Amino acid sequence: MNSRKKTVSQTSVHAMVESIVGCKWSLHVLAQIRAGINRPGALERTADGLTQKVLSERLNKFLRFGILEKHSYPEVPPRVEYAFTPFGRKFLKLLDEVEELQRELG
Amino acid sequence: MNSRKKTVSQTSVHAMVESIVGCKWSLHVLAQIRAGINRPGALERTADGLTQKVLSERLNKFLRFGILEKHSYPEVPPRVEYAFTPFGRKFLKLLDEVEELQRELG
Repeated sequence: MNSRKKTVSQTSVHAMVESIVGCKWSLHVLAQIRAGINRPGALERTADGLTQKVLSERLNKFLRFGILEKHSYPEVPPRVEYAFTPFGRKFLKLLDEVEELQRELG
Repeated sequence: MNSRKKTVSQTSVHAMVESIVGCKWSLHVLAQIRAGINRPGALERTADGLTQKVLSERLNKFLRFGILEKHSYPEVPPRVEYAFTPFGRKFLKLLDEVEELQRELG
């Protein structure tokens, strides 16, 4: 948690917004996880053109930003799921408001 | 109004946030106007080091963004006041939330 904060504090909130609003795959992946699709394989199948490489880059960015956390379950085969952190849920609301104001500009 | 929209739509909301959060004079001027100090002369006197040039650059940026509107009153001497647009008031709330999330990152 503390290490998360340390990591996240290296990126400012407005730089996070910039990095995500400007990236269609970032927005797509966040929308899918928000809709409950939270496993890498399932996420990869949500869009043609979304490669495993691009997906894991985006997921790692969200982990670095402290927006997502990764849960690994010791099963066979191992199960991995991503979930929003409390900060991530607030950040999503911020993104919604940015999009709402953007629409207002027409 | 229409021309304002045209102008504003050239700058995205997240680029506006970037441009303002990263600029101490932008934040200072918005805070002063929010506090009711809305005339150029009075704004210039709110901080040492705030020159007329820097102030008018920031005010023009806010007009361009559609955050502020300028009211000129045909008096002697002419009176000029700046006020937040409806968009500007919503944008201020967005800035508050960005700052709040930033504090959370510690």
